[in-house]
Amino acid sequence: MEFKEKLSTYVAEIEQAFETLLPPESARPVRIHQAMRYSLFAEGKRIRPALVLAACERFDNPRNALPAAVAVECLHTYTLIHDDLPAVDDSPLRRGRPTCHIQFDEATAILAGDALLTYAFQLLSRHYAGSSDKGIELIQVLSEASSSEHLIGGQMEDILGEQRVLEQDELNFIHINKTSALIEASLEMGAIIGGATPEQTSSIISYGRCIGLGFQIVDDILDATSDTQTLGKSVGADEASNKSTYVALHGLEKSRQYATELATKAYQICDGLDMPFLKDLAIYLNRRTN
Amino acid sequence: MEFKEKLSTYVAEIEQAFETLLPPESARPVRIHQAMRYSLFAEGKRIRPALVLAACERFDNPRNALPAAVAVECLHTYTLIHDDLPAVDDSPLRRGRPTCHIQFDEATAILAGDALLTYAFQLLSRHYAGSSDKGIELIQVLSEASSSEHLIGGQMEDILGEQRVLEQDELNFIHINKTSALIEASLEMGAIIGGATPEQTSSIISYGRCIGLGFQIVDDILDATSDTQTLGKSVGADEASNKSTYVALHGLEKSRQYATELATKAYQICDGLDMPFLKDLAIYLNRRTN
Repeated sequence: MEFKEKLSTYVAEIEQAFETLLPPESARPVRIHQAMRYSLFAEGKRIRPALVLAACERFDNPRNALPAAVAVECLHTYTLIHDDLPAVDDSPLRRGRPTCHIQFDEATAILAGDALLTYAFQLLSRHYAGSSDKGIELIQVLSEASSSEHLIGGQMEDILGEQRVLEQDELNFIHINKTSALIEASLEMGAIIGGATPEQTSSIISYGRCIGLGFQIVDDILDATSDTQTLGKSVGADEASNKSTYVALHGLEKSRQYATELATKAYQICDGLDMPFLKDLAIYLNRRTN
Repeated sequence: MEFKEKLSTYVAEIEQAFETLLPPESARPVRIHQAMRYSLFAEGKRIRPALVLAACERFDNPRNALPAAVAVECLHTYTLIHDDLPAVDDSPLRRGRPTCHIQFDEATAILAGDALLTYAFQLLSRHYAGSSDKGIELIQVLSEASSSEHLIGGQMEDILGEQRVLEQDELNFIHINKTSALIEASLEMGAIIGGATPEQTSSIISYGRCIGLGFQIVDDILDATSDTQTLGKSVGADEASNKSTYVALHGLEKSRQYATELATKAYQICDGLDMPFLKDLAIYLNRRTN
């Protein structure tokens, strides 16, 4: 199957699983479930859940990884809802639609984010209870990656670093934790479900670090060069807030060069793993326009 | 050991466990860990974590339940931080100190809440990995109780119900989910760690429902009758916002009577369970002044 067709298949399966695995909109209280679904169903690239499925497929049927894939997207979506809040990034637009606090209200958005975060762990503990050793490991990996020392820590330093010029190592801390940690965790979770060896899992995580860092650099490039319609969210916000980005620190050309180096390294790791989908994905993510 | 001495022993062990089980304040980024600790260490009654230890002790060494007790208090503290935010209850004072968003700022408070919620699942998945069947069950119980259909759902309906008079069943939904669900879960988690039989666990949960509902009714009574200094948080807020409470719906006398009925029922359940600490606790909670 061609790469793009494969990606579409994954995305279709993931979005179908949202429907069956999330509480129905009719569940009491309706408003919280509407808000959770509003943000989760908004059109997204679904890269993280696709990584869960792809990392599993090399070793096992990716269907077994669907609840974990949905859990990861719930987790990712909660971070978007809370990052967009007026007290944080104050973003009106996300995934081409009004952000959760604009569509509903701030209190509902705070609770919907909390609920999606909680639901990630509900899903994992329910669906992998039958093989509880794996289940616990999945919960360890996801909770660690999204903790105060990783994902949330990256977001905290990102906020603290606004309005001043960051050193390269500060920017690295933010990118590795805010963006790459969850991407690496997605791959690791797929590998755990599939039953990869420790060596294979370790290579898959290294691949994740390359595409994770690359992903954030491309985000910075797009914020500096794209337009709101193509991107589905507000652009130019980084420059307007004097935010330190790869582009601000190193310029566009060097940023593009570094992103391509990372994609190439990721590509090479896949050769050793015999994972053609992930290989193509590294290139695809490097060339993306939104 | 006398009841109050026993409770103090539990509280001391729990607060010592915060110190050893939470990430140090020096962990990067310092600010998020300061905020997490600021809210967690603020003087609290520690009822929920004490319930975890007490429900375990009847069957096993309560020390084994300490990580779960800390996880429950992290979960509870996150709900306080997010409930106090300007967009939700807009409370300046909690546990006798400025609320997290006043002491730090709103963005930090949102993230600190997220981080404590996440940390609850980190703790459970790390510390009960050795008996992963129990670990998964603990995570199921805690994530279900704190989900959009229970704890968060109760908070959502509480917000939606402001400024109008609620029916008795709406108020029950709020109390059962916003307050009682986590109290019941704390007891169930202790029972699981201790290895209680399904019948014992079921009785312990029924006890939890009685003290959980009673707890919220006493909260309503205190909000209507106490003062800020005694309570350590703002009082009279319910009446000022025309909030529906047991007191508003049924008056003080009937509310006190119902709370006492619930405490008596809880007391009786404990006879069958041979759990004297929980028995005394039901009376203590009914008579509390803060």
